[in-house]
Amino acid sequence: MLRTYHKSVIQVEDYKTFMLRTKEKIDLQLEDFFRNKMSSNWDSLTSTVVETIRDFTLRGGKRLRPILMVLGHNLFADENDKIVKASISMELTQTYLLIHDDIMDQSDLRRGMPSFHVDIRNRLNLTHDDAQRLSENLAIVAGDLADSYSHQALFDAGFGSEETLKASVELSRIIETTGYGQLLDVYSSIHDSFVQNDLMRLHLWKTAKYTIEGPLVLGALLSGTKKDFSYLSHYGYLLGVAFQLHDDILGLFGEEKQTGKSIKGDVNEGKKTLLMIKAMERSGDSEREFIRKCLASGNVSDNDFRRLQELVKSTGSLDYSRDVMRKLVSRSKDYVRKMDGNSEIKGFLEWFADYIIQRQN
Amino acid sequence: MLRTYHKSVIQVEDYKTFMLRTKEKIDLQLEDFFRNKMSSNWDSLTSTVVETIRDFTLRGGKRLRPILMVLGHNLFADENDKIVKASISMELTQTYLLIHDDIMDQSDLRRGMPSFHVDIRNRLNLTHDDAQRLSENLAIVAGDLADSYSHQALFDAGFGSEETLKASVELSRIIETTGYGQLLDVYSSIHDSFVQNDLMRLHLWKTAKYTIEGPLVLGALLSGTKKDFSYLSHYGYLLGVAFQLHDDILGLFGEEKQTGKSIKGDVNEGKKTLLMIKAMERSGDSEREFIRKCLASGNVSDNDFRRLQELVKSTGSLDYSRDVMRKLVSRSKDYVRKMDGNSEIKGFLEWFADYIIQRQN
Repeated sequence: MLRTYHKSVIQVEDYKTFMLRTKEKIDLQLEDFFRNKMSSNWDSLTSTVVETIRDFTLRGGKRLRPILMVLGHNLFADENDKIVKASISMELTQTYLLIHDDIMDQSDLRRGMPSFHVDIRNRLNLTHDDAQRLSENLAIVAGDLADSYSHQALFDAGFGSEETLKASVELSRIIETTGYGQLLDVYSSIHDSFVQNDLMRLHLWKTAKYTIEGPLVLGALLSGTKKDFSYLSHYGYLLGVAFQLHDDILGLFGEEKQTGKSIKGDVNEGKKTLLMIKAMERSGDSEREFIRKCLASGNVSDNDFRRLQELVKSTGSLDYSRDVMRKLVSRSKDYVRKMDGNSEIKGFLEWFADYIIQRQN
Repeated sequence: MLRTYHKSVIQVEDYKTFMLRTKEKIDLQLEDFFRNKMSSNWDSLTSTVVETIRDFTLRGGKRLRPILMVLGHNLFADENDKIVKASISMELTQTYLLIHDDIMDQSDLRRGMPSFHVDIRNRLNLTHDDAQRLSENLAIVAGDLADSYSHQALFDAGFGSEETLKASVELSRIIETTGYGQLLDVYSSIHDSFVQNDLMRLHLWKTAKYTIEGPLVLGALLSGTKKDFSYLSHYGYLLGVAFQLHDDILGLFGEEKQTGKSIKGDVNEGKKTLLMIKAMERSGDSEREFIRKCLASGNVSDNDFRRLQELVKSTGSLDYSRDVMRKLVSRSKDYVRKMDGNSEIKGFLEWFADYIIQRQN
C-alpha cells in the first residue's frame, strides 16, 4: 500500500491520500455487500429497512475503523482484497452500535442526518399514535441485523478458518466490551460519584476498544502473523481514550456543520465528560450547581450553554483535558516505536496519533 | 446417548428422561459460563446486569433449542461434552432475542416472571422520572451482550476451526433471519392486508429458523458430517411453523400458570395469529369488526376476551389451525423417515414432532 509511493519519508499528504483511497475501496465493498443483501425478494417493509441500514452506513462517516483494520493487517502482511472486504465488518458493527445508541440517547441527529429511528419513521410515513415506539422497535431490529451482517462480512472475506475464527472471537469481544462501556455510561448518568477514573474506564470500554484497538487487532489477527502485537494493542487503547477526549471537546466547542451532531447534544444528554467533571471540581458551590443543572436540564438554553463553555475554559478544565489527551497521544507513539511490523505503516500510525486529536469532525 | 438404554424400541418415558437429563447438563454449562463471566471485577451496575442476564436465562425455559442442537449433532456423531458446551449458544441467543422482544412488545411478563427491563428496574431500584426509558436502555445493551455471549459459547466449545466457523456463519444467519421475521411481525401489526401466506413466512423466519431448524443444523454442522442434511432442515422448518401455531393456540386457550405468559398477552399485543386471520375471514362484518377492535384495544376486557375465544371456536378457526398444524407435523415426520443418521435419534425426532404440538407450555 504505502509502499507504492516509493519514498523513504512519507509526506502527510500521502497519508491523507491513503486514507481517502482506502475509504473509497471500503465504500465499494460496502455497496457490494448491500447490493447482495438487497437482491433478496423481500416484502416492502424489509426492503425499506435494509435500504435504510445501507444508507445510514454509506451516507457519512470517515471509515476510521475499517481503515485501522486494514492497517493492522498491513503492519504484518501485504494489503490484499480480502482485508478490504473483511474490514467492512467494523463499519457494520459501527452501524449496529450507533443505531442502538441513538435510540438509547433519544438522539434525532447522526452525521448531520436523521438518526435511524427518525429516518425509518419518515420513510415509512408512520403516523400512528405509537409511531415513535414502532420506529424505535424497527431500529432495535435493524441494529441486530447490522450486527449479524458484521459477522457475515468477516466470514465471507475469504481468509482461512483459523484466522477468521480468531478474528470472529475478537469481534464478539469488541461488542461485549462496548456493551460494558455502555452500561458504565448509563451508570454515569445516574450516579453523582462518577469520577475521572471511572470515566477513563468508560472511554476504554465504550470507545477505545471498538474504535481503535479492536480494529487494529482484528487486522493483525487476519494477517496470520505469529509476531507479538501487544504494543499495537496498547497504542490502540491509549489513542482510543484520546480520541474520545477529543470527541468530547468537539462536542462542546466544535462546529455543528463539521461534526454533524447537535452542538448542545452532549450537554442535553447529561454526559459527564472529563470537561464537566474537572470544571465541577474546580468550581465554587454555585457554579458547580449551575453545571449540574445544565446537565440535568435536557434542554439547555443558549445563554446557559455559552456560560457553560466559558466555565469550562476559565476553570482550566479545557486545558486539563487537552493536556491529558496530548500525554496519551505521546505515550501511544512510544509504543509505535517499540512495535514490530512494516516501518511505513508504523510511520502512518505515528502520524495518525496526532491526526486523531486534530480532526474537526 | 439414547444408545445407553440398550433397547431396540425406545419408550416415550426414555425420550422425556433424555430431554430432562440433557437439560440438566445444559443448565450446568450455562451456570459455568456465567460463573466465569461473573468472576470479572466489575462495577456494581455491570455485575447486576450480568447477574440479571444469568437469572433471566436460568430461571425458566425448556432448553428446547440447545437440546435440538445436541440432537442434530448426535444424529451424525456420538454425544460428547463439546456439543453440550456449544449448545448453550442457542439458549443465549434465545435470551438475546427475548430481552429485545419484550422491550418491543412492552411485555412485563416472561416465563411467569418479570421481563428483563422490569427485572433490572426493580433490582436497581430505579425510580427516576425516566426509569422506564433507562431500564429499556439497559435491556437493549443486555440483549446485545447476550448475543456476544452466544457467539463466544460457540467459539469456546472446543470444536475444530472448520466446524466452528461453519456453525458461526449459521448462527449469524439464524439471527439475521429472525430479524427479518421480527420486521414482518411489526409489518403485520400495521397492515390490514396481512394474510395466511404472509403469516406462514413470518413463522418460518421469526420462529422456525431459530427454534427448530437452526439448532438442528448447527448441531449437524458441528458433528463435521459430510452427509447431506437437507431433510433435517426441511423437518425443522415444518415443525417450527407447527410449533408457532401451537404456541398461538396456547396463547389464546392455555393456562397462564403453565405458559408463564399473560393469557391476554397475544390479543393485547394485537397479534394477527392464524386463529385471528381465519376467524375474521369466516365472520360476518360486525364480528370481524369486533375482532379488529379487540386486537387494536391494547387492553381487552374479560368479557370481550371470552367472546373472542368463542368466536375462534365457533367459526371453526381453532379446528383449522389444528388441522394445518397436524399436517405440518405429519409432513415433518415423512422427512425423518427419509433422512440419514442414527436411527435412535430419528426415533426421537419422530416422537418430538408430536410432543411439540401437545405440550402445555
